[in-house]
Amino acid sequence: MTEGEGMTISRREFAGVALGAIAARAQESERKVGYAMVGLGRISMQHLAPSLKASKIAKVTALVSGHRDKAEKMAAEYGIPAKNIYSYENYDAIADNKDIDAVYVALPNSMHAEYTVRAAKAGKHVLCEKPMATTVADAQAMIDACKKANRKLMIAYRCQFEPTNLRATELIRSGRLGKIQGIESANGFNIRAGEWRLNMKLAGGGPLMDVGVYSLNACRFLTGEEPGDIKANWSVIDKDGRFNEVEENLGWTMRFPSGIVASCNTTYGANMPGFYRVHGTKGMLHMEPAFGYEGIHLTAKIQGEPAIDEPNPEKDPAQFTREADHLANVILHGGELRASGEEGLRDMKLMMEIYRSCGR
Amino acid sequence: MTEGEGMTISRREFAGVALGAIAARAQESERKVGYAMVGLGRISMQHLAPSLKASKIAKVTALVSGHRDKAEKMAAEYGIPAKNIYSYENYDAIADNKDIDAVYVALPNSMHAEYTVRAAKAGKHVLCEKPMATTVADAQAMIDACKKANRKLMIAYRCQFEPTNLRATELIRSGRLGKIQGIESANGFNIRAGEWRLNMKLAGGGPLMDVGVYSLNACRFLTGEEPGDIKANWSVIDKDGRFNEVEENLGWTMRFPSGIVASCNTTYGANMPGFYRVHGTKGMLHMEPAFGYEGIHLTAKIQGEPAIDEPNPEKDPAQFTREADHLANVILHGGELRASGEEGLRDMKLMMEIYRSCGR
Repeated sequence: MTEGEGMTISRREFAGVALGAIAARAQESERKVGYAMVGLGRISMQHLAPSLKASKIAKVTALVSGHRDKAEKMAAEYGIPAKNIYSYENYDAIADNKDIDAVYVALPNSMHAEYTVRAAKAGKHVLCEKPMATTVADAQAMIDACKKANRKLMIAYRCQFEPTNLRATELIRSGRLGKIQGIESANGFNIRAGEWRLNMKLAGGGPLMDVGVYSLNACRFLTGEEPGDIKANWSVIDKDGRFNEVEENLGWTMRFPSGIVASCNTTYGANMPGFYRVHGTKGMLHMEPAFGYEGIHLTAKIQGEPAIDEPNPEKDPAQFTREADHLANVILHGGELRASGEEGLRDMKLMMEIYRSCGR
Repeated sequence: MTEGEGMTISRREFAGVALGAIAARAQESERKVGYAMVGLGRISMQHLAPSLKASKIAKVTALVSGHRDKAEKMAAEYGIPAKNIYSYENYDAIADNKDIDAVYVALPNSMHAEYTVRAAKAGKHVLCEKPMATTVADAQAMIDACKKANRKLMIAYRCQFEPTNLRATELIRSGRLGKIQGIESANGFNIRAGEWRLNMKLAGGGPLMDVGVYSLNACRFLTGEEPGDIKANWSVIDKDGRFNEVEENLGWTMRFPSGIVASCNTTYGANMPGFYRVHGTKGMLHMEPAFGYEGIHLTAKIQGEPAIDEPNPEKDPAQFTREADHLANVILHGGELRASGEEGLRDMKLMMEIYRSCGR
């Protein structure tokens, strides 16, 4: 089995993550990477920021928010001095703040590009939430800006750092499942009215951009291949005003160069627990939950081997620590960045192909 | 929620099957419908024929085979007189045999049409295995011949008579799951070299025709809708000589008139346990195994209701008794035939659309 091209997860790195090599290296480091939270929504306040309390190599050192009250409350909790609280207006002043090495961009999708480019111009590294942007042009501009500033740009693909997903990837790429033939995956939820995710200008698209991207990215990181022959269908069923701009349901099939055929579904209209199942000539694996913040659970049946049943006991926000630590580690010690801007750009281009193929 | 058009399962019939109404009616009948097994392969010898030992309204009364030895052995087991053993050459003589009411056609797909048409001409009803035929023209010819002879033509869609699949259909069509948004389904297996199923002329296609049809038919009977916007991908990965004629892997997405998006996979290259999951605004259900001869297992989560966990404890060949009894019951007592030739023809047309959409 050959290593996939165009992907940045090597066999050695699986082992590294699994064995806690990052933590070991961290103990050698003398300082912690300082993150500025850009956008104080649920994911930054309840997941990423809390996750850094457990980090040995990163910490929250600054906050960027349009809500001073919210920021001051959070600053008190994290021991952040008032001078390290920024608004969107004076955001560029982070350039002068040595407490800040990197920003975590957790804003509505359409703002990712602007706040990444401004961070790069301010000399800061960037960890940006997925989807990377709302257009391919914006994604490219983010990459270009970070390259020009010689700063790292990482997209927050949590699952690429989650040990059980890495274990699945190892089972597949090592050939333990034989030649992979087919993959099914889905991910979706029933969205509340009023969310910015339903606004096309802010979100750039519907469930595909927000949660379908997990299935798309998983099919790519599991196989190490880049898909083609993308064919999709979309629909809106609930004429309740939520879906005047973005799609409600979307399904697609795609084919990988080796011949693997994947069929995926996503929705904003129903509970659709994130899962994938991968079928090889020697066995299959089923991951469910596959993409959640905790409770990731792998089962697999491989010919002639005992059944595999491996739940990940880690609790939220451990996955966020892992992803933030990855970028911090690269900043501190160098090495190859996984889940780079280029990786995000590939998903952006593929999502645009999915939309094009179904006439969106 | 409106009843689906073009489908023949009514709410009343669900209840009828579930409550054993057929068995109750059977006790009133004075005679049993006699089936001739046409083709003594695994499915007829190990499943359908044994299943009729438990039937109150049908029995095996004749055998049609190219292997006289095999037929005589089986005849002894079932108490079938030598005069009721036929070859493919003298098959048409079943016309003169009053012991035979119906034939069960369990031959390679390409022979379904001929042996159905000859049965109709001989004045016999037909229960034909799926896929109905290898071409739409053949399927239509089968329907026409049975219509002309005023004989019933039923396609052996086991799952349409299996109580747990009917329960899932009821949960969906009654609105218990809310508006249905998305469906995922898959079904496949790793085929042995040398099977007639790998011969295009005999099989008419690959895993789609043989096992993918379960997913296709399930999406239709679950929703009561007819899909459109079919888009598919196929591939051959194992260049080991098995797939010189038929596809190895196939995935497709389709959209139903109400907006439901379904994404499905099938394969002859790997273990791909038959499942479907259906997502509605109020809940979801997962069926697995969905299509097997036994062990069918339904789980569902519906908002505000206790979790549903309903395995079907029936053992093989109970499903075969149910399907053969359905036709027998219609023959004896009249009433609407479910899983008619027209139902098979719809799947045939859709499978041809799937093939066309991926350039097969």
